[in-house]
Amino acid sequence: MRKPVIGVMGPGETAQPADLAAAYEVGQHIARAGWILLTGGRNIGVMEAASQGAKEAGGTTVGILPNHDPQSISQFIDIPIMTDLGSARNNINVLSSDVIIACGIGLGTISEVALALKAGKQVIWLNLTIAGRDFFQSLSPELFTVDSPAAAVSLVQQFLQ
Amino acid sequence: MRKPVIGVMGPGETAQPADLAAAYEVGQHIARAGWILLTGGRNIGVMEAASQGAKEAGGTTVGILPNHDPQSISQFIDIPIMTDLGSARNNINVLSSDVIIACGIGLGTISEVALALKAGKQVIWLNLTIAGRDFFQSLSPELFTVDSPAAAVSLVQQFLQ
Amino acid sequence: MRKPVIGVMGPGETAQPADLAAAYEVGQHIARAGWILLTGGRNIGVMEAASQGAKEAGGTTVGILPNHDPQSISQFIDIPIMTDLGSARNNINVLSSDVIIACGIGLGTISEVALALKAGKQVIWLNLTIAGRDFFQSLSPELFTVDSPAAAVSLVQQFLQ
Amino acid sequence: MRKPVIGVMGPGETAQPADLAAAYEVGQHIARAGWILLTGGRNIGVMEAASQGAKEAGGTTVGILPNHDPQSISQFIDIPIMTDLGSARNNINVLSSDVIIACGIGLGTISEVALALKAGKQVIWLNLTIAGRDFFQSLSPELFTVDSPAAAVSLVQQFLQ
Repeated sequence: MRKPVIGVMGPGETAQPADLAAAYEVGQHIARAGWILLTGGRNIGVMEAASQGAKEAGGTTVGILPNHDPQSISQFIDIPIMTDLGSARNNINVLSSDVIIACGIGLGTISEVALALKAGKQVIWLNLTIAGRDFFQSLSPELFTVDSPAAAVSLVQQFLQ
Repeated sequence: MRKPVIGVMGPGETAQPADLAAAYEVGQHIARAGWILLTGGRNIGVMEAASQGAKEAGGTTVGILPNHDPQSISQFIDIPIMTDLGSARNNINVLSSDVIIACGIGLGTISEVALALKAGKQVIWLNLTIAGRDFFQSLSPELFTVDSPAAAVSLVQQFLQ
Repeated sequence: MRKPVIGVMGPGETAQPADLAAAYEVGQHIARAGWILLTGGRNIGVMEAASQGAKEAGGTTVGILPNHDPQSISQFIDIPIMTDLGSARNNINVLSSDVIIACGIGLGTISEVALALKAGKQVIWLNLTIAGRDFFQSLSPELFTVDSPAAAVSLVQQFLQ
Repeated sequence: MRKPVIGVMGPGETAQPADLAAAYEVGQHIARAGWILLTGGRNIGVMEAASQGAKEAGGTTVGILPNHDPQSISQFIDIPIMTDLGSARNNINVLSSDVIIACGIGLGTISEVALALKAGKQVIWLNLTIAGRDFFQSLSPELFTVDSPAAAVSLVQQFLQ
């Protein structure tokens, strides 16, 4: 049996402190649950924070990089996949994840959530505005909002059963 | 001098009649302005309607297909680009367009708008809900809403100057 | 009826004078036949030479760029498609061409010829070494070598019937 | 320190028994060396054989799938990356590998070797014909041929130092 792969997505350069804190904690929970963490792989923002959380809790981390620059890989990534596809790699992130957890709001994040919902994946969103929640929930029944990393991971557990 | 390329994006299977009507009319305006129309290239929804409008007004149409199936190409496409990239091709649509006009709301459309704004492109959105407008305008100053195809095209004219 | 799209591929920075001469002449023939020329779109090597030939003979040219840098587009390209996919865009070049003509030998060219043959496309190769011809013809019956641009285009004509 | 990622590439449906045997043995060596194996991820040919070898020797396996069909994933893959990019994913395979070992000859394999050499990667080729060796070695000094899986892995060891 393969281990589940949980994708954690969110802003890079524009991540807010609350997004980073949530991503770090989500990463820890994912590692403790025995799941594999998948992120965008760069050394910044939600990608970096989630990867650090997972590594510090003893997990395995996969990063799907938009470029092919070794300098941009987070030090907390075990397996870097160098796509050189730019933002076209966002679709790989979502197709390769069993469930997606988004932390915070950014334009890249929105593209990933939209592609995930289009592909029929379940998306759990932390730190989403009410306007964002109302907009996306009108488009898909697979978009869930929760108010803590623990609640997000508990929902993942439920979806994986 | 190359002719400007204007991307028209919107739902495929789930397009509403108002989206199709807007896309058709936008396509006509684009052709009459001497611009090239770029769409997702398939024979359905906003892609098909915009392409039909442009062709019937004597324009040139480029379609960026997600697959490599000749059967899926709209009959109103002059130049089909077969990417076989699935939804990853959405990023090509926006990077290849000088300005983007979205007609209606769909998950693929949202991913394209988000990628376009991330790439610094101007996006003009027809038939967007108020909730959608409020959400996206809080994320980027390059998102514009208008209430008619003529207004959309007039805004493009302004942006191209 | 859509016009046939003929892909011309070959080395960029490492193109030999004979490759450039062949590409220029092939581009002219393609334009005169009323076909659309598709190349990798950059302002160098076989891409540039073929595009120049086609434009100077009044044709239409499409370029599938590996990046999203407007500075790198050949001035002889009418419709630039900005993929930002790096060498992954090579597969789009071949899938979007009805027949492929290769001029000269380079590593990118070889990847395109291999992908084209894998996709069942016919490939006509100018300026191929005997070693290269023997190697590729042992792998596919769809690889043809000719000794002049006129012969290449005459073979395309035959394949399109 | 991240573990090295070694890519093993070769034919799928058209693999010869000698290619499968070589791939299986190479996979075992990679696992025993403590490296991560990267393949095209499908349940057939060289991809499957190398993955089986690595798993049976206790290694970790990553598969870069061309589609998004869970049924096509080799049972010997720990981490499947679902690209849905078709053959465009071949470039990801090579960019994500520190060194590439090719087993046997196929059109997809040739595209991968050419892209790898273009990206400046070292490629070690098992079961290559003399014609193939002469052709590729005239194009790049980074193409190496060896006559056993053990010799291939010993060369990788040397390259990684």
